[in-house]
Amino acid sequence: MNILVVNCGSSSLKYQLIDMETEKPLAKGLVERIGIEGSILTQKANGEKYIIEEPMDDHKKAIELVLKALVDGKHGVIKDMSEIASVGHRVVHGGEKYSKSVLIDEDVMKELEDCIKLAPLHNPPNLIGINACKELMPKTPMVAVFDTAFHQTLPDYAFTYALPYEMYSDLGVRKYGFHGTSHRFVSAEVAKMMGKDIKDLKIITCHLGNGASLCAINGGKAVDTTMGFTPLAGLVMGTRCGDIDPSILPFLMKELNMSADDINNVINKKSGVFGLSGVSSDFRDIENASKEGNKRAELALKVFDYKVITSIGAYVAALNGVDAIVFTAGLGENSATNREAICNGLSYLGIELDKEKNGMRGEAVEISKADSKVKVFTIPTNEELMIARDTEEIVNA
Amino acid sequence: MNILVVNCGSSSLKYQLIDMETEKPLAKGLVERIGIEGSILTQKANGEKYIIEEPMDDHKKAIELVLKALVDGKHGVIKDMSEIASVGHRVVHGGEKYSKSVLIDEDVMKELEDCIKLAPLHNPPNLIGINACKELMPKTPMVAVFDTAFHQTLPDYAFTYALPYEMYSDLGVRKYGFHGTSHRFVSAEVAKMMGKDIKDLKIITCHLGNGASLCAINGGKAVDTTMGFTPLAGLVMGTRCGDIDPSILPFLMKELNMSADDINNVINKKSGVFGLSGVSSDFRDIENASKEGNKRAELALKVFDYKVITSIGAYVAALNGVDAIVFTAGLGENSATNREAICNGLSYLGIELDKEKNGMRGEAVEISKADSKVKVFTIPTNEELMIARDTEEIVNA
Repeated sequence: MNILVVNCGSSSLKYQLIDMETEKPLAKGLVERIGIEGSILTQKANGEKYIIEEPMDDHKKAIELVLKALVDGKHGVIKDMSEIASVGHRVVHGGEKYSKSVLIDEDVMKELEDCIKLAPLHNPPNLIGINACKELMPKTPMVAVFDTAFHQTLPDYAFTYALPYEMYSDLGVRKYGFHGTSHRFVSAEVAKMMGKDIKDLKIITCHLGNGASLCAINGGKAVDTTMGFTPLAGLVMGTRCGDIDPSILPFLMKELNMSADDINNVINKKSGVFGLSGVSSDFRDIENASKEGNKRAELALKVFDYKVITSIGAYVAALNGVDAIVFTAGLGENSATNREAICNGLSYLGIELDKEKNGMRGEAVEISKADSKVKVFTIPTNEELMIARDTEEIVNA
Repeated sequence: MNILVVNCGSSSLKYQLIDMETEKPLAKGLVERIGIEGSILTQKANGEKYIIEEPMDDHKKAIELVLKALVDGKHGVIKDMSEIASVGHRVVHGGEKYSKSVLIDEDVMKELEDCIKLAPLHNPPNLIGINACKELMPKTPMVAVFDTAFHQTLPDYAFTYALPYEMYSDLGVRKYGFHGTSHRFVSAEVAKMMGKDIKDLKIITCHLGNGASLCAINGGKAVDTTMGFTPLAGLVMGTRCGDIDPSILPFLMKELNMSADDINNVINKKSGVFGLSGVSSDFRDIENASKEGNKRAELALKVFDYKVITSIGAYVAALNGVDAIVFTAGLGENSATNREAICNGLSYLGIELDKEKNGMRGEAVEISKADSKVKVFTIPTNEELMIARDTEEIVNA
C-alpha cells in the first residue's frame, strides 16, 4: 500500500509517496514557484532526478503534475493513480479542536477554515492543497495531520498566558505549539531505542532547525513546548527572535514609528541568528563566520545555545526529572559542535557525551556514554512517515 | 552615623533613617499623594505613628516635611539635620553605565537624565527626589543605588536579545534586569547563613512580590535574571504578564484595534494573576478565592507557580548546578503554600522541605531539611539597608 504525503506552502509543495510495507519513500518531490513565473517540479526516485518545467497557475495544476510524475512511464514509480491508497496532508494549525489526525470530510474542511484566523499564513495553502487533491482524486480518502495536535495534552497551567482571561476564552490566545508531528515521531523512536515503554519515560525532544522548538514529554504525552500562540516563541531561530521582553515591541514601534505589521515582520523575518549575526539565517554560514573571527556570529551561536540549555533546564523542572534528551531536525541532526556545547552546559544532570558517537551523522544513535545518567540521542526526524502512518491507521479504521 | 534612604515614586516617597551602628531604622515613613489633593505623610518611629496632612505641591515640599518630621521635638528621632550624614537614593535604571552605586555629582545627574528614555516612568521621579534633597541639604553627600547595577555582570549571551543587532547598539535594547539591590542583599545574607564564601556558591534568589524576578548568581555575580529590558518580562506578576509569545501583541493590536500604548497598558496593568483570575492583583485575595472554589483564581496561582518552577529549572541549567535557593519579598517571605508548591516541583534536585520551618514567618530561616541536597531559605529582603550600606561605604571612601 502506498500513501501520498503532501505538504503545501503558499507557492511550494513537498510530497513523498511512501510504501507502507517498507516505510520507505518510493519518490520524493518538491514543486516550487506555484503561481509564479518559472514553476518547476523536481522529483527524486530510483536514484534519479526528474524535472518538469511548465507553467503552474495554481496548486491544482501542481498536483496534476505531481501525479503525472509519479505515473510517468520512464521516471515514475507507479502504474496509475489507483496505486495511491490514500493521501495524508500536513496542516499547520488544528486549534483546540484537533488533538489527533482526522479523516477529512466536509465538516472537517469547515473547521479548518475556522482555524485560518489562528494561522493566516500557513493554513490557507494547506487547505488549497487539500481541495486540489480532492478534485483530482475524488475517491481517495484523505487525512489531515496537524502540527499542533500533539501539544493538545498540555495542562492548562502550561498553555495559559497570564493575560486577561478573555483573550483566551474569546480570541483563542493560548499556547498551541508546533512541530508536533516531529516531536511525536522522535519520542516514539527513542522509546523503541531504549527498549522501554514510552509511558515510563520523561523525554525532552529538541527539534532544532531553521524553526526550532523543544517539547517536554511525560509518559508519551506532551506537557510543555517552547513555541506558543505562533511559531515565533521560545528558542532563537533562523530569523525569529523567540522569547523576548514583550514590552520591547511597543517601545520599538514608538521609537521607530512602526505599525503592528512592521514589528511583526521584524521579529519574524529580521531577527534570530540572522539579525544578531548580520551574516545569514543558515547556521552553517554563521559557524563559518564565527570560526573566521566574526564576533557577532559567535555571539549569535552562544545566544542560540544558551537558550536551548536553559529551556532544557526549564523542562527538566516541568517534568521534575528527565530520562532522555533527543536532538533532531537540520541542526539537531547535523551539528555535533552544537550538541556538544548544549550537553556541556547540562553536566549537572549527569550527562556524559560520547564524542565519537556524537560525531556520527545521518543515523539514529545514542550519543551519551553508557553510564550517563541522562541518555542523549540524535534521531533523524521523519514527519512524512508519521503523517503516512497516521493516514494508514485512520483510513484502515 | 545616620543615613537617610529615599525612594521616590511619581506621587509618593518612601524613606528610612537608618542608624548604621545597629543597622536598624530609627524612623520609617511614607508620603502619599504628592502634587495631588489630600497629601499625607505617615512616619513610624519609637513604636508611634506621626501623621502630617498638609498640601504638598511637589517633591521638594514633601522632603521638607520628611525632614521636619525627623527632627520634630515630640515625634522626631534626631535633633537636627546635621545628624543625617548622607542620603542614599534608589534609582531604578542605571543603563549600561552603572554596575555599582555612585556618589552623585553633576556628571552623574546628566547621565541619569540620559537613562530616562530607558525608564520613562521610574527615573524621572527618582531624579526629582534627588534634586529636591540637594536643594534642601546642599552639603550632604548623596549616593545613587541602582536596581539594574547588580545585573551588569550578565554575560553577553544572557543579556542580548535575538533581534537585529542595531536594536542593541543604537537603541540600548537589551536585558537590564531589576530588583538588583534585593537580589544582592539576600544572596549576601544566604552566604553568611551558610557560613560560606559567596565566591564558592551557586545561588538562585527568588524575589516574589507584586513585581517578581529571579536571579542566578554564580560566585556572587549575577549571571542571569528574569526581568528584561523592562520590569515586565519573566515571571507572572500581580498585573504584568511576564514572558508571552511576543507576536500575541501585533495579533491583539489588529484584532482589537489597539495602539502601542494600549497594548502596553494591557500587558503591564491588566494582566498577570489579576487578568487571569479576574479577582485581584493581591495574592492573598486570589488564594482565598481559590480556596472558595474559584477556578480562574486556582489557575492563576498554578500558572504563577509553574513559571517560577520552570524558571528556577532554567537557572539551575544557567549555573550548571545550584547550592541554594532563596525566597524573599512579600509573597516569597509570607506564603508557605507557594514555597511548598514550588519546592515540590523541584524534588528532582534533591530538595526536601522542612514543613515546620517553612511555616515560620518574618525571620531569615533555612526551610529545607538538614540532608536536602539543595538548601532552601526564606530571607526577608532589606533594600533600604543595602542602599544605606552602599551609601556609607561610598561616602567614607
